[in-house]
Amino acid sequence: MNTDKRTEIAKLGKFGLIEHLTQGIAPSNKETLLGVGDDAAVLHFNDGEDTLLATKLFMEGINFDLTYFPLEHLGYKVAMATFSSIYAMNGTPKQLTISLAVSKKLCIEDTEDFYEGVKLACKNHNVDIAGTEITASLTGLAISTTVTGTAPKGASVKRSGAKETDLICVTGNLGAAYMGLQLLEREKIATEGYEIQPDFSGKEYILERQLKPEARKEVIERLREENIHPTSMISVTDGLSSELMHICKQSGSGCRIYEERIPIDYQTAVMAEELNLNVITCALNGGDDHELLFTVPIADHEKVAAIKNVHIIGYVVNKDMGLALITRDGVEMELKAQGWVQNNK
Amino acid sequence: MNTDKRTEIAKLGKFGLIEHLTQGIAPSNKETLLGVGDDAAVLHFNDGEDTLLATKLFMEGINFDLTYFPLEHLGYKVAMATFSSIYAMNGTPKQLTISLAVSKKLCIEDTEDFYEGVKLACKNHNVDIAGTEITASLTGLAISTTVTGTAPKGASVKRSGAKETDLICVTGNLGAAYMGLQLLEREKIATEGYEIQPDFSGKEYILERQLKPEARKEVIERLREENIHPTSMISVTDGLSSELMHICKQSGSGCRIYEERIPIDYQTAVMAEELNLNVITCALNGGDDHELLFTVPIADHEKVAAIKNVHIIGYVVNKDMGLALITRDGVEMELKAQGWVQNNK
Repeated sequence: MNTDKRTEIAKLGKFGLIEHLTQGIAPSNKETLLGVGDDAAVLHFNDGEDTLLATKLFMEGINFDLTYFPLEHLGYKVAMATFSSIYAMNGTPKQLTISLAVSKKLCIEDTEDFYEGVKLACKNHNVDIAGTEITASLTGLAISTTVTGTAPKGASVKRSGAKETDLICVTGNLGAAYMGLQLLEREKIATEGYEIQPDFSGKEYILERQLKPEARKEVIERLREENIHPTSMISVTDGLSSELMHICKQSGSGCRIYEERIPIDYQTAVMAEELNLNVITCALNGGDDHELLFTVPIADHEKVAAIKNVHIIGYVVNKDMGLALITRDGVEMELKAQGWVQNNK
Repeated sequence: MNTDKRTEIAKLGKFGLIEHLTQGIAPSNKETLLGVGDDAAVLHFNDGEDTLLATKLFMEGINFDLTYFPLEHLGYKVAMATFSSIYAMNGTPKQLTISLAVSKKLCIEDTEDFYEGVKLACKNHNVDIAGTEITASLTGLAISTTVTGTAPKGASVKRSGAKETDLICVTGNLGAAYMGLQLLEREKIATEGYEIQPDFSGKEYILERQLKPEARKEVIERLREENIHPTSMISVTDGLSSELMHICKQSGSGCRIYEERIPIDYQTAVMAEELNLNVITCALNGGDDHELLFTVPIADHEKVAAIKNVHIIGYVVNKDMGLALITRDGVEMELKAQGWVQNNK
């Protein structure tokens, strides 16, 4: 929260605040004919494209903790998490609507900070802010976002197209955002009531993954350049295990992934060690990664392996074989939504 | 809240609940290629149409009170209020996304009731449910909605096109939803802690306007049939005064409306009398009407006057003349966002 200057929201009122926050916002995409400021935005999509639509809802105390989450970062993060849904359809995000329910705890300067983050995210990904609502909240902050995007006609990628022998790929690395969260939670407890600043040196990367994640735009662009059409794709929001289950369930398939191939940053590993956590469990189940999980035909092996930040972690198998992780010592463990247990076979 | 049977949401979990609630939902609009169940919905809009996009956020304790608001009605109402934004652009709603943040107070049966209301609203207005998110809430229920719609290319109506001499029209009648709310609040206080049922006989209409409002689809259709193209339009959400101000501000104009022409239902008037409230103030400032306020060229006078449920309440004037209500006894009162005061002139 902003501590330098506090202007109560009541000073501007709902409409005044919306106007203030959205001042100077001008659409930059040709699809956005009319942005904020009316009952609805007016968009125009061309006949050769499909339109994508996704929505998210973030609640204080559940999805974020304002005691350590700077509002500017929060604005950036919710926008990124939302764009991620469009990239996960093999699309390009175009317009974002963002609504806030604000408690008395927050002042105008806080909402400005939040909006700065949203605007920066939109600028970096060339997305237009196309609508904003503000209402009051009796308790915590609630944030709702909706994003539209486009994909060439028929080119959007669902969760349901994975086929046997397809390669399973994941971008970046996993578990880092979760470790960043654990660190923030630990320091919150350790510094509560004291005027001391937590020491985060050597842990910047995992903090950034939690506080300022980046959606994987460049991977989608590289896949297009290489003419690779994923057979299924999903955004890694609730952890790798959970997302693999969605893909396998909706595709009617099973999977094998290799423990040794799961990409993990060394800061993630060090932090897990410090907290006495199993780093693989964290990578499988830690949320908020906003990486992309996708499958490609085995024929694309060489092409996909050459793309920076893409890791082949396993392959799609017959549904009857179930979902499993193969550990470093060759043991097959069944994947569960939370954690994993040794196969009975 | 459902009192017959309570199944905790934890029993199904987030994904199970989303699946349960959206089971059997199949898109009926040709524009909806893929509805719920993936990272994003896939839509296709045709080149001859513009796409409209609007979003809303509803918070328990601020926008609704669950002690007297049945969840099925709430689902219906939030959907209607959202559709209303598309009608207010002269468009047709096509897809709705709806997200809930649910506190422990609510059970699966409650969310089912809520969804029944949403589904009924969607069925009545031929809108597809195209996305759903569920998250937890520490305290009250939060509901976020987004609607997309279409309008023939270039035919959407903004708030900014009102011109001098245009007629100001409003649909249905005003203040009824606000009076329904006052009644519910009064009975809530009166019956609190007692096992008695409030008596609402003779007040069904104002209750329905509060609990189960209807968006003005038919007026939009009639305007099209009559080939009337409104110069500006807005949904009456925060009261007539407030919406007139938006139109006049964005159009750079002023207005004159006549007290005697403001449409008021007799139940609204009776209730205002009972509560010792000025019924015109209620009609000007009561929220939640979900009627349409629009302006048409004076040349369309006869055609618009003949449309059922449309009332001509005044006309657009030069900006310098300001915004005013002309009372029954001919006095000009300046319109304010909340209430109105006598002109100094």
